Amino acid sequence: MATPLAETIAREYGTPAVVIDMDKVEANIARVQAQCDAQGLANRPHIKTHKSPELAKLQVAAGAKGITCQKIGEAEVMAAAGLDDILISYNLLGEEKMNRLGRLLETVSVTVAADNATVVGDLPKAAAVAGRPLGVVIECDTGRKRAGVETPGEAIELAKLVAASPGLQFRGFMMYPTEDGWPEAQKFLDTALAGIRLEGLDAEIISTGGSPNMKNIGKLKGATEHRPGTYIYNDRMQVEVGVATLDDCALTVYSTVVSRAGADRGILDAGSKTLTADPGGGLDGYGLILEHPEARIAKFAEEHGFLDLSKCNERPKVGDIVRIVPNHVCVVVNMVDEVVMVRGDEIVGILPVAARGKLR
Amino acid sequence: MATPLAETIAREYGTPAVVIDMDKVEANIARVQAQCDAQGLANRPHIKTHKSPELAKLQVAAGAKGITCQKIGEAEVMAAAGLDDILISYNLLGEEKMNRLGRLLETVSVTVAADNATVVGDLPKAAAVAGRPLGVVIECDTGRKRAGVETPGEAIELAKLVAASPGLQFRGFMMYPTEDGWPEAQKFLDTALAGIRLEGLDAEIISTGGSPNMKNIGKLKGATEHRPGTYIYNDRMQVEVGVATLDDCALTVYSTVVSRAGADRGILDAGSKTLTADPGGGLDGYGLILEHPEARIAKFAEEHGFLDLSKCNERPKVGDIVRIVPNHVCVVVNMVDEVVMVRGDEIVGILPVAARGKLR
Repeated sequence: MATPLAETIAREYGTPAVVIDMDKVEANIARVQAQCDAQGLANRPHIKTHKSPELAKLQVAAGAKGITCQKIGEAEVMAAAGLDDILISYNLLGEEKMNRLGRLLETVSVTVAADNATVVGDLPKAAAVAGRPLGVVIECDTGRKRAGVETPGEAIELAKLVAASPGLQFRGFMMYPTEDGWPEAQKFLDTALAGIRLEGLDAEIISTGGSPNMKNIGKLKGATEHRPGTYIYNDRMQVEVGVATLDDCALTVYSTVVSRAGADRGILDAGSKTLTADPGGGLDGYGLILEHPEARIAKFAEEHGFLDLSKCNERPKVGDIVRIVPNHVCVVVNMVDEVVMVRGDEIVGILPVAARGKLR
Repeated sequence: MATPLAETIAREYGTPAVVIDMDKVEANIARVQAQCDAQGLANRPHIKTHKSPELAKLQVAAGAKGITCQKIGEAEVMAAAGLDDILISYNLLGEEKMNRLGRLLETVSVTVAADNATVVGDLPKAAAVAGRPLGVVIECDTGRKRAGVETPGEAIELAKLVAASPGLQFRGFMMYPTEDGWPEAQKFLDTALAGIRLEGLDAEIISTGGSPNMKNIGKLKGATEHRPGTYIYNDRMQVEVGVATLDDCALTVYSTVVSRAGADRGILDAGSKTLTADPGGGLDGYGLILEHPEARIAKFAEEHGFLDLSKCNERPKVGDIVRIVPNHVCVVVNMVDEVVMVRGDEIVGILPVAARGKLR
């Protein structure tokens, strides 16, 4: 059953192996860049998905204005590799993080997000370490109930606090609207913008996020940039929301069937320590097996993927190598130190996941 | 709210940080070893939980007969650090794995599990590489429906196949009974043992597994060894099944509250890339916050832990550092390259998770 490429990957690297098709990676980069360009929006891809400076550089070469990171550790890896113009879309605080943020700011252009006065109170320490201003965008919640101030009034107050803080530069607003939350985001933004303008401030950055939101870009009047991440690889979730096809999924996990102890069941050598227990927002099973789409990855042990084969007419045998499209590719990439790069049927190299596990 | 230790960890390492208390680690090692000793069972701890040779050596020094690994990559790390007598409790097959298994067998004593004829057909290649016999135990399914032959008859046939295979040595049976599946396991074992004895074979190893099964050890007549893993750290799942108390949980994740955008909610800087989406077999929420047990870690983004604080009388503020007991500690350890070691209130070192991410 296995393709020649699968046999080669199994022989040279073993399974499970995380494999990316660079032809698809490049096509995904180009397509989303073109979509941003068509809307007049800067593209600031989130590197959390790939965690590799090499791929960030491809995104920049294709036209991305800069990059987005979630953690200082990710930004440090990217900056050390030569990336610049980094947005850290996360509340940072505490002495250890302010020192690292300051040292990062000494070498590259950095903007950070903030949604509360405690964080804004800490950020001047980083600017002081660097001896130059730190840009700050106010994170606004527009329905996701994650981080972000809940009202335009709070956003205006926090913008004023940033503008009044030594070493900080108010740069604008950051949002991550839900897929149907864009009218709400517009109301929030219009009110916040009107409010800060009354205070003599203005927003040079209005940043929206999310690969699933590629279908919504252009809907927010005043937006200046978008932060898509997952689009570089895509996954079952992106297919589910309609922003990618299965053929656009550049990353697959090659896995071997190691047990078929019952007629209706089998075991993959990829468990939750490879594919992760991420449910993908309620998808059926933990990944799609391209060779056996009727098979269900029903549950996991750490190194066992439990296959329910009851709906399969053709069932994999022990030793078969299958390709799995994960539910959520960003967390799968974060499990491995490197991925195998292919183009079509050829292996073209190994790519380190340089910022893997940079959780601080 | 934060303890002096939490402040020190946040200042020196930053959060999120995975922290182990070595006093508790040592107490857990000693307690489970004593329980095995009291039953006359060899202890063969599963290193999947800690993935650190240093801790495996502590387990051996306390009396463990050898170790259990799930992947060759884990066993390679352990063998390189001086560990010996390794059971790889997993179906291994394919050219790449047979070569590596053979090289491993050149240097240390290795036994592997098998549950099918395809795997048994490959294993002689590893023995040939090493130029010495490879021990094999037959994995038996006794209710978990994971790997393992389903009937004693299949176990007997596979034992005969192993015994007849060049370079392979039949060593016995391996089981991972469910918590209430021990009577079933006894029937399976008795029938399989009677069957192989009729064939002139015998089993020197009867291996059972699981930290939750510490409450069942001694129940299987004929068992020779047990393979507990999680007990070295413990977690919410072990507390839930009653084999550990919260105070026995040696590993906690130190995390900072970074957002409190709503009265009833907050955000931790530990998301699914730190705590993992492992539901812990149906536990409420994704971890227990020791300082705020009424708080619920309701869901995750990759770097955001969503706190539901609606039931908390005392609610954490932005900047507070909290300690989290994870649902399933084995998958959390596998997210990080190192853990911080403490004894009580003192930091005593950094421990590399040397076999982290060894998925092959």
